[in-house]
Amino acid sequence: MNTSSSNSTIRLYHIALSPFCRKVRLVLAEKRIEVELVEDRYWEPGSEILRRNPAGKLPVLRMDGRLLAESQAICEYLDEKYPSPALMPHSAIDRFEVRRLCSWFDDKFSAECTRPVMNERVWKKVMRLGYPDSRTVKAGLSAIRYHMDYMKSLLEHRRWLAGDVMTLADFAAAAHLSCLDYISDVDWTHSSEVQEWYAKIKSRPAFRSLLADHLPGVHPAPHYALLDF
Amino acid sequence: MNTSSSNSTIRLYHIALSPFCRKVRLVLAEKRIEVELVEDRYWEPGSEILRRNPAGKLPVLRMDGRLLAESQAICEYLDEKYPSPALMPHSAIDRFEVRRLCSWFDDKFSAECTRPVMNERVWKKVMRLGYPDSRTVKAGLSAIRYHMDYMKSLLEHRRWLAGDVMTLADFAAAAHLSCLDYISDVDWTHSSEVQEWYAKIKSRPAFRSLLADHLPGVHPAPHYALLDF
Repeated sequence: MNTSSSNSTIRLYHIALSPFCRKVRLVLAEKRIEVELVEDRYWEPGSEILRRNPAGKLPVLRMDGRLLAESQAICEYLDEKYPSPALMPHSAIDRFEVRRLCSWFDDKFSAECTRPVMNERVWKKVMRLGYPDSRTVKAGLSAIRYHMDYMKSLLEHRRWLAGDVMTLADFAAAAHLSCLDYISDVDWTHSSEVQEWYAKIKSRPAFRSLLADHLPGVHPAPHYALLDF
Repeated sequence: MNTSSSNSTIRLYHIALSPFCRKVRLVLAEKRIEVELVEDRYWEPGSEILRRNPAGKLPVLRMDGRLLAESQAICEYLDEKYPSPALMPHSAIDRFEVRRLCSWFDDKFSAECTRPVMNERVWKKVMRLGYPDSRTVKAGLSAIRYHMDYMKSLLEHRRWLAGDVMTLADFAAAAHLSCLDYISDVDWTHSSEVQEWYAKIKSRPAFRSLLADHLPGVHPAPHYALLDF
């Protein structure tokens, strides 16, 4: 048998402060799947990202000799392969609601909040692409408040975002908000309901690896890793 | 019982030439689910899109007294609720591949091809937003050829995009390509493998409703509805 130990290791190619990588990291940690995190600074010369994923995106999960890409497909695969603890509910209509909200955050929240704010305030600095555009940042910060209002409307009659149990939808939302919270761009005083929800999910052991993230040159907000914020 | 017949009718709020609406229409038709199509010209005054979907996006499916949004969540829900004919394979790793490719088309192909080309050549005209930007169109057309090369690399050792059976991934891809084909922007001579795949899916009864689409002011290419193109 020529399978080396390194080939059977589960490995996640990722970058700190990517909400899509964070969602997969949360699922892996919640299911207690041991994973080796490998940072792929894909904008630097020598990155092999296109060899690992022709879509040129992170995260990429190396598992069972395959390279798996697309965060939502990876998360659903992990939930099917490692069913406990479950992150998808049993009934079809409840699963629909989880998937609807994952799309809400990975598509709409990402386009209106995470991507503009993180691009301007983090990635332009890290990738040396110039100074942030303050109008784009301002529009993104305003959109965060709108989305917090929407989350509040859900949490007024649900314990978690998609219903009364924690699901992948909570991890998708927390993955995005945690990136913005790293740079102190979430005004938690805007909604006590959303703050309480985030405090619950932030205190889970699965969140610890995210709270230990540090991106060189971009310092986390003082409250970022505090469970009482 | 006060349930009126109109409330039990399944209704899809959609717009012609939206790949996301088309994907859902293909799934409904393949499963022979009767649906009333209601056009929602959401950019015109009086549209109730935000009341039906706070994300402000089409399609929205009214079913069982609920309003369902997000095309991928809708399609997976329909496949779970109406399992025959199945559009998702049995094994977790095969389902992963279907979902990966759905994301490929709904995210990457959409951003690089469908959205720029359709925005410039169709929606600007329909919504009276000015003239198309030829550089954006050119970049989109060039990206279509790159994506056809990727599809060809899959079809060289698979009968359908995600494996040897037709799945939701084929519907996602065909939904995007059919919009671009309406305006004659797919060069089928670029790959005979992709052309053969499209001829197979285009000849299915589920495709008929799409081939009958007509957007006022934007005429379909002469070959658009031909099964021999």
